[in-house]
Amino acid sequence: MIDIRRDGQSSRSALLDVLMRKPAERRPMWFMRQAGRYLPEYRAVREKAGSFLDLCYNPELASEVTIQPLRRYDLDAAILFADILVVPHAMGLPLRFEEGEGPILQPVRSLEDLAKLKPLVSSHEVRQVCRTVAWTRSQLPADRALIGFCGAPWTVASYMIGGGSSDRVIAKVAAYQRQPWFVALMDRLVVESVDYLCAQADAGAQAVQIFDSWAGDLGGSELDEFVLKPIQAIIDGVKERHRDLPIIVFARGIGSRQKKAAELNGANAIGIETELELTELPSDVVVQGNLDPVALLAGADVAAAEARRICASVQRNRHIFNLGHGIRLGTDPAVVGAVVEAVRRFDD
Amino acid sequence: MIDIRRDGQSSRSALLDVLMRKPAERRPMWFMRQAGRYLPEYRAVREKAGSFLDLCYNPELASEVTIQPLRRYDLDAAILFADILVVPHAMGLPLRFEEGEGPILQPVRSLEDLAKLKPLVSSHEVRQVCRTVAWTRSQLPADRALIGFCGAPWTVASYMIGGGSSDRVIAKVAAYQRQPWFVALMDRLVVESVDYLCAQADAGAQAVQIFDSWAGDLGGSELDEFVLKPIQAIIDGVKERHRDLPIIVFARGIGSRQKKAAELNGANAIGIETELELTELPSDVVVQGNLDPVALLAGADVAAAEARRICASVQRNRHIFNLGHGIRLGTDPAVVGAVVEAVRRFDD
Repeated sequence: MIDIRRDGQSSRSALLDVLMRKPAERRPMWFMRQAGRYLPEYRAVREKAGSFLDLCYNPELASEVTIQPLRRYDLDAAILFADILVVPHAMGLPLRFEEGEGPILQPVRSLEDLAKLKPLVSSHEVRQVCRTVAWTRSQLPADRALIGFCGAPWTVASYMIGGGSSDRVIAKVAAYQRQPWFVALMDRLVVESVDYLCAQADAGAQAVQIFDSWAGDLGGSELDEFVLKPIQAIIDGVKERHRDLPIIVFARGIGSRQKKAAELNGANAIGIETELELTELPSDVVVQGNLDPVALLAGADVAAAEARRICASVQRNRHIFNLGHGIRLGTDPAVVGAVVEAVRRFDD
Repeated sequence: MIDIRRDGQSSRSALLDVLMRKPAERRPMWFMRQAGRYLPEYRAVREKAGSFLDLCYNPELASEVTIQPLRRYDLDAAILFADILVVPHAMGLPLRFEEGEGPILQPVRSLEDLAKLKPLVSSHEVRQVCRTVAWTRSQLPADRALIGFCGAPWTVASYMIGGGSSDRVIAKVAAYQRQPWFVALMDRLVVESVDYLCAQADAGAQAVQIFDSWAGDLGGSELDEFVLKPIQAIIDGVKERHRDLPIIVFARGIGSRQKKAAELNGANAIGIETELELTELPSDVVVQGNLDPVALLAGADVAAAEARRICASVQRNRHIFNLGHGIRLGTDPAVVGAVVEAVRRFDD
């Protein structure tokens, strides 16, 4: 077991306790993109690994960067270091990351393109990711949870359709038009995502988060059809095999429709960016979030004050402290430390 | 008076009637960025004018493109053709538009930068814009309203701070830190915006819209301080001089906080992108929006069906039909026509 930062003495996981609505010893806390380029120790490993994808598929190094933030900070969870594009990549789509340009993926825009995709479970890529999960879990003490994840079908599909681009216009038009290949792609991604999350759970992930980063693109019946319904189908599929695996749903930016997300059957927590106050969801819902990552760039005092404001707004037994979005490059690690400190002190 | 598309016979403005809560003869309708590059007749004028800024400051040609969409479509309002960066430009900041790159503006990031700015009212730029307003108004029949506009302080400031870039991180950090120069810039923009909108009203604008395109960046007390408070101050300042001038507030993407926008004293209508259904605001509030501009790219059937869904959700006496954001380049003008038709038929 590796040396991590532990200010408490518990053997229970506060994150899992809150997700399962059990009394927790403290307010659980983790940060989206807590393992990343803002940390010098991450940059050192990244340099050693080669490309970003080499790092994702190297269990030893991916596990190392997964654990790094828990060495620095007294956090309640590690989140698997991987990328949401692992799913299309493991399904056989060529993928590369260009420095400063983002991902480039072979686009999928027809039934023919779709027919070429392979099931992901037996792929080299997913096997390596699951090795990372298993190795990381074996390194963590019992009170630190390991979170697995996948991208939600809408977000993954929009990258696949856009060829890796974050421009979702082609995908949105396909959704509006209910293109048969689009609908088939979404259905396929539900199946693959269930397999992927179950494989992570089999390997040792104790909770999973479904990231729908672009959910806010869709409204009306498209939101129901292509955000909420596929996420529900993934939850159902995963819970059929892993009944007690907690699932966090992060449908970013869907505004007042977060109330619909909170009604998803089997969602143990709802992540919110900044489109709602956490308190706007019913009081029986566990909420995750929602400190603005830009507040971390404004210095320790500002960030800690914002963190306290959020903690004051929501009871710790239904709150997972997190950001509204990932930690930004250029964030001072000391400011992250100040926020952790502020949250810990708040509940003392 | 020019030849425009008029399917009705009224001499009253449906837009102004709904804004003033009077019985209107039909559901008023206009589209954000209705004058723009998706129209071949716009592209022809744009070519003749020279640069984008040359067009903005040429009253005859700017008036022409302002009116163009009303020749094609039976719309209830023209919106002044100009740019939200007219304000910093008229205050003396060098500005240029690079093809395919967006605006480049000399950045403002200190009290010294701020001290160099001039009052905009007596500038050549604002005089030309007001000539466009006057000329356009003289060309329009009584039942077609002319809408003036300005960017809200947060949005204009974020461009000024970012040097024209749409990356608002530096501006957000300054807001979180309550940098004295940032606060002074916001105060200054309130004063200049009041003068600018009043000058437009003096020249013939019959309603004005305040565009806070990046309002959704801010939450918590920053939203109150730097979105809602400055907009309220602009409304107060304008209504002191033009008591009956209707004001539309478009604080884009502020999620459930649109309920706070709806409480702004003197806001005659609230524009909404897609973060809320129009019906989520109290029933005494006039709402504007919120067809997704991407739906227009999905073809006439999809777009018309979406338009009908929106019309069905909100009574016409409190609704201004519009998009949730500007018309996109590449939109087929015939699809815009189909939406206009669908909205007109809906209420028949």
